[in-house]
Amino acid sequence: MTAIRPEPLTAGAFAAFGDVIAFKEAPDKIINQGLCGRHHDLARLDFTDGRAGISLFDAQPRVLPYRLEMMERHPLGSQAFIPLNPTSFLVIVAADAGGAPATPRAFLTAPGQGINLLRNTWHGVLTPLSTPGLFAVIDRIGPGDNLEEHWFDAPYEVTPG
Amino acid sequence: MTAIRPEPLTAGAFAAFGDVIAFKEAPDKIINQGLCGRHHDLARLDFTDGRAGISLFDAQPRVLPYRLEMMERHPLGSQAFIPLNPTSFLVIVAADAGGAPATPRAFLTAPGQGINLLRNTWHGVLTPLSTPGLFAVIDRIGPGDNLEEHWFDAPYEVTPG
Repeated sequence: MTAIRPEPLTAGAFAAFGDVIAFKEAPDKIINQGLCGRHHDLARLDFTDGRAGISLFDAQPRVLPYRLEMMERHPLGSQAFIPLNPTSFLVIVAADAGGAPATPRAFLTAPGQGINLLRNTWHGVLTPLSTPGLFAVIDRIGPGDNLEEHWFDAPYEVTPG
Repeated sequence: MTAIRPEPLTAGAFAAFGDVIAFKEAPDKIINQGLCGRHHDLARLDFTDGRAGISLFDAQPRVLPYRLEMMERHPLGSQAFIPLNPTSFLVIVAADAGGAPATPRAFLTAPGQGINLLRNTWHGVLTPLSTPGLFAVIDRIGPGDNLEEHWFDAPYEVTPG
């Protein structure tokens, strides 16, 4: 299997695939009589023929090495994952190459970082690396087929480092 | 000062003010080859003349008794608060009485519960009761004045129980 080594998740490295949802060094605005910092509008939400919704995901943790057999994408909407515990999780994404994922890249979040996947971006399923794997998910709610899957002939393996 | 005793946060008691964002007893759907439960579309998001956005709030913790001097509301959008640590926080809301808050009610969340305030619902500012007071916030992004404040002539006091 072709090995993929995870990279640290940074906004720059991830920009073509989505957004890193994280506290900045300083808030954009101080509100509530000085008692709250607002880090403003951190994700490029993008919904076609539907609306934004908030759901919760409870995902089983995985271990590295992780066998990547399938990637998926959502043509009708962006999808944000915000961890409800300050833990790391694995994010696998790929550029599109003629309707199938190009060689995947893997990112390891820092504790507390969330992500927003741009609409129609190839990605692996939610892969927490510790328990509990609880996430708030902001994605498109609406009718229609919003899931495309691609199964690899030869799986990849995401290695521990 | 008039004392307000916090109630436990339940979906039924809170329904007129907003939604409780929490895992159900069973997920609405199992996804990702059986490895993830989706608890689906848990909040009545409602945005006027704007769009949904994801921000992060870093709020200083308060202690009870808490002096409630002001409530606010957002005429142009709902506002959801999802705690990024499994802690409790205080939620103060009020019905509208002719353009000002009626007698406020206070709710104490169970660890991990989030809330979504319906558009134009009177509420107190974000009041975590422990540190860190970190929240994901899904609210309206757009131009225009989306904040109305009401300062009480006589403050209320939210008591420990």
